Amino acid sequence: MESGGLTVGKGLATALSAALQARFGPRFQAGEALRAQHAATTTWIAPQPPDAVVFPETTAEVAELVGLCAAAGVAMVPFGAGTSLEGQVNAPHGGVSVDLSRMDRIVAVHAEDMDAVVQPGVTRSRLNAHLRDTGLFFPLDPGADATLGGMAATRASGTTAVRYGTMRDAVLALEAVLPDGSVIRTGGRARKSAAGYDLTRLLVGSEGTLGIITELTLRLQGIPEAVLALRCSFPDTVSACETVIATLQCALPMARIELLDALTVRAVNAYSGLDLPETPLLLTEFHGSPAGVAETAETFTAIAQDHGGHGFAQATTPEERTRLWQARHDVFWAGLGLRPGAKGISTDACVPVSRLAECLRAAEAKAAELGLIAPIAGHVGDGNFHNLILIDPDSAAERKAAETYIGWLNDLAISMEGTCTGEHGVGQGKQAYLAREAGPALRAMAAIKAALDPHNIMNPGKILPAPASGAGR
Amino acid sequence: MESGGLTVGKGLATALSAALQARFGPRFQAGEALRAQHAATTTWIAPQPPDAVVFPETTAEVAELVGLCAAAGVAMVPFGAGTSLEGQVNAPHGGVSVDLSRMDRIVAVHAEDMDAVVQPGVTRSRLNAHLRDTGLFFPLDPGADATLGGMAATRASGTTAVRYGTMRDAVLALEAVLPDGSVIRTGGRARKSAAGYDLTRLLVGSEGTLGIITELTLRLQGIPEAVLALRCSFPDTVSACETVIATLQCALPMARIELLDALTVRAVNAYSGLDLPETPLLLTEFHGSPAGVAETAETFTAIAQDHGGHGFAQATTPEERTRLWQARHDVFWAGLGLRPGAKGISTDACVPVSRLAECLRAAEAKAAELGLIAPIAGHVGDGNFHNLILIDPDSAAERKAAETYIGWLNDLAISMEGTCTGEHGVGQGKQAYLAREAGPALRAMAAIKAALDPHNIMNPGKILPAPASGAGR
Repeated sequence: MESGGLTVGKGLATALSAALQARFGPRFQAGEALRAQHAATTTWIAPQPPDAVVFPETTAEVAELVGLCAAAGVAMVPFGAGTSLEGQVNAPHGGVSVDLSRMDRIVAVHAEDMDAVVQPGVTRSRLNAHLRDTGLFFPLDPGADATLGGMAATRASGTTAVRYGTMRDAVLALEAVLPDGSVIRTGGRARKSAAGYDLTRLLVGSEGTLGIITELTLRLQGIPEAVLALRCSFPDTVSACETVIATLQCALPMARIELLDALTVRAVNAYSGLDLPETPLLLTEFHGSPAGVAETAETFTAIAQDHGGHGFAQATTPEERTRLWQARHDVFWAGLGLRPGAKGISTDACVPVSRLAECLRAAEAKAAELGLIAPIAGHVGDGNFHNLILIDPDSAAERKAAETYIGWLNDLAISMEGTCTGEHGVGQGKQAYLAREAGPALRAMAAIKAALDPHNIMNPGKILPAPASGAGR
Repeated sequence: MESGGLTVGKGLATALSAALQARFGPRFQAGEALRAQHAATTTWIAPQPPDAVVFPETTAEVAELVGLCAAAGVAMVPFGAGTSLEGQVNAPHGGVSVDLSRMDRIVAVHAEDMDAVVQPGVTRSRLNAHLRDTGLFFPLDPGADATLGGMAATRASGTTAVRYGTMRDAVLALEAVLPDGSVIRTGGRARKSAAGYDLTRLLVGSEGTLGIITELTLRLQGIPEAVLALRCSFPDTVSACETVIATLQCALPMARIELLDALTVRAVNAYSGLDLPETPLLLTEFHGSPAGVAETAETFTAIAQDHGGHGFAQATTPEERTRLWQARHDVFWAGLGLRPGAKGISTDACVPVSRLAECLRAAEAKAAELGLIAPIAGHVGDGNFHNLILIDPDSAAERKAAETYIGWLNDLAISMEGTCTGEHGVGQGKQAYLAREAGPALRAMAAIKAALDPHNIMNPGKILPAPASGAGR
C-alpha cells in the first residue's frame, strides 16, 4: 500500500495514513527499517513490526493521535527505549507505534519536595545527570538505560528496590491519554493521598494497555553522605540466602544486595580477569552517614561470618566501588561469554525470601537436568532472580528445553506464593503464566481493560490475550 | 416490617431477610440499636443506618452473603471498627452492613519473610500484641485502633508514614469478594511483582466500593534496636516547616515527625499540665541502631537550631518516650478541652512539603477570620495536617463557617498540587472535592466502578456519587 510516497504496512488504511501524514508530517514514518527497529525486543519472541511509527512531541499531539487511531479502530503501541523483555513493544495487531522519545523534557525539579516532573521519553540516566547539582537522585536502576515512561509502564525496579522500592513506589502521579483521547492526571505532588481509586498504581505496570503515559511526577531521594560497598563469598546458596534473611530481619538499611551463583562467578572471572572464589557471591551496598554505613557493614559482616561468609572486600570511593561491583555490572556480557554466539533469555521469578534458597537449588538442578547453561543473578533482597538461559536460537531442541525450563520455573514460583515476573512484566511472553497466577482475578483485570479500552486499541495482545474479536481494524 | 421476630428496616425485602436469617441465624440482626451503631461515624455527617447487620465468619460466608444481596439488588456496606471519618460506613441506600469483626484470625506470621496474613477484622494493636515475641511489628499507626481491613479499605496511614509508608505500601496482597460473588486473590507473598494490573493497590483505598476485603497479607518491619524521641519548639510555623524540609533532604531516617501548632500546644498544656512554650512544636522519633539514632538526633538538632529550634528534650526508654510524646497522644482530647461540649470535625489536607508553611499560615488566618477554633496537628513529613474544628453542633452559623473553612482549605490544597485527603478518604464527605481534584480522571474511576460493580451494590454513594438510577432495590 502506498501513501504519499511512504511505504505503509498492510494494515493501515489509506485515510488514516493520509490524516497522520497531514498532521505529523515527517514525524509520521512507515519505512521498513524504522518499523522493524520498533519491534526489536530483547526476548526470543518473534518481532512483529507496527504499520507505522509516529513521533508526538506534546500531550496534545498524543491525544490527537489517539483520537485519529481510535476513530479508525487502529491499534497503538507505546514505545520508549525498546528495552522491555517480554514483547511489550511488538505490534501483533499492526497499527501505530507511538514513539515517545521526543517527549524528553525535564519539566521541573522541585528540590524542596524531592520530586521531579518529566516527560516519558526522559531516560533515568539523563534525569540523574540533570539532578547532579541538587543533592538528589532518582534511585531506580533496572540495568538498561530505559525511559522513565517505559519503566513506569512495566513497573520496573532493579538492584536498589530493596531500599527504594519499585516504580510503584517512585511514581507520585501521572498524566496519561486514555483510549478515548481524554487526558487525565492521576494525582498531585503530595507525598500521600487517599483521594479515590489509585489510578497511578493502576497505570504503573499496565504496559500501555490502558493508556499512554505523557508525564510523570517522580519521587527523588537525597544522595547519601556515604556509600559503602561490600562483597563476600559463601560456601553454598543456602548460606548466602540465610544471610540475606537475617540481614533483612535486623532492619539493616541495605541499598542493594545481589547474589551471583557459582556459574555466574565463573563467567565473570573469565570475562573480567577476576579471581573470585567460584561459589555463590553476595554484593551489597549501604547508603547513609559515614558512621552509619560503617556500623551497618560491621553488623552485616558478623551476620555473614555466622553463615560461612568469607573473602570480604569493602570499598567506599566511587572508583573502588565500581571495581568491587564490576562482577555484577558484567553479568550479562560475561554470561553470554560462557557460550559465544548463543542467545540469552532472561527469566524473572520472584518468591518469598524464605523460599529463595530452595527455589535457586531446584532451578540449578532443573537447568542441569535439561542440559541448559543458565547462570543466575538475583536481587535477593526482594526474592527476585534472573537466569540467563543460553541457547542456540537455531536449535529447536534447545528452544524447547528453554521453554520447558521457563514453564517449570514459573509454576514453581507461583506454587511458592511468588510470581512469574518480579520486574519484567507480562507482555506477550508471560500471559499463560499470569492466567495461572492470577486465577479469577484475571477476569477483574479483563473487566477493567474492557471498561477503559472497550475497542481494545491500546497495545492489544499484551498482558491479557486479545478477546476473540481482536483489535478492531 | 417484621421478619421472624426481628424488626427489619424498611428497605430489606422479606424474601432476602428470610434467606439471610436462614443462612446466618443469630448472626443476622436488624435491631434498631445495632443498626444505629453501625452507622456511627466520627464525622458531622448524619448517620444513615443499614436495614440489617450480618456477621460473616469466613470468606465463603462473605461470598454467599454477596451472592444473596446481589441477587436481590441490595446494597452492602463493609464494616470494620467504625472509626472512619468521612461517612464510609453509612448506608444511604439502606441494605446490609457486613460486619467483619468476627473475621479476626491471624492466619499466619512468616517471620523469615517479614509478612503476616490476617483476616480483615484484626485490629492493628492485636496484630502487634501477637507479634510481640517475633522481633517484628506492624508499623502503621492511624491513631484509632482500626481494623486492618478498614485501614486497607481507606488507605490509612498516620504518624509513621514518613518512614514506613501508608497502607498502599504495607499491603502485599489481598483476598476479596467482588460484587459478582467471585473470590479473588490479588497477589502472593513475593516482595514485588510485575504481574498484570495492580489490583491490590486498586482495592486499597477503594472504601469497600469495589469489593469486600476478606484477607490481607501485610509487610512487617523489624523492631529497631533503638528508638529515640526528640521534641523541640520553634518561633513560628515557617521555621518548623523549613526544619522538616532540610531534614528530609538530608535523607535522615526519621520514623515520625509531627507538628503541633501554637493553639494545640496551649490546649495540651492545659489538658496535661505541661509547660511547653506555646509556639509551634515538632515531635520526632528515630529508629535504628543506638549509634545511628544518636547520630541522627545530633544532625537533626543542628538543623533545628539553624532554624531557631529551642527547648530540646530527648528520650530513649519506652516510659520516657511516652511522656515526651504525651503532647501528641493527647491532641484530640486536649483539643476538645479548648471548648467543652463542642463537636470536633477533622480536616485532612495534604500538600507538597514546600507549600506546607504557606498553607498552615493561611489556614490559621482563615480560621481566625471565620471565628473558628481549629487547632492543628500535622504529619508534616508527608505535608499532611488535620484541623480539629470545634463547633457547637446546634449552631447553624457555626456549621456553615466550618463548611466554608473546609471547602476553602480543600480548594487551597488542590491548588497547591496537593489533595483534599491525605489519609481519611473520600466517603460521603469529600465527593465534591474529589470531583474537583480528579477532574477528567473521575470518569475513569466511574468506569472502573461500573465495570466491577455494574449494579452499584457495593457501598453505593461512597467516593463516587451514585448514578441517577441509584442502588437497585
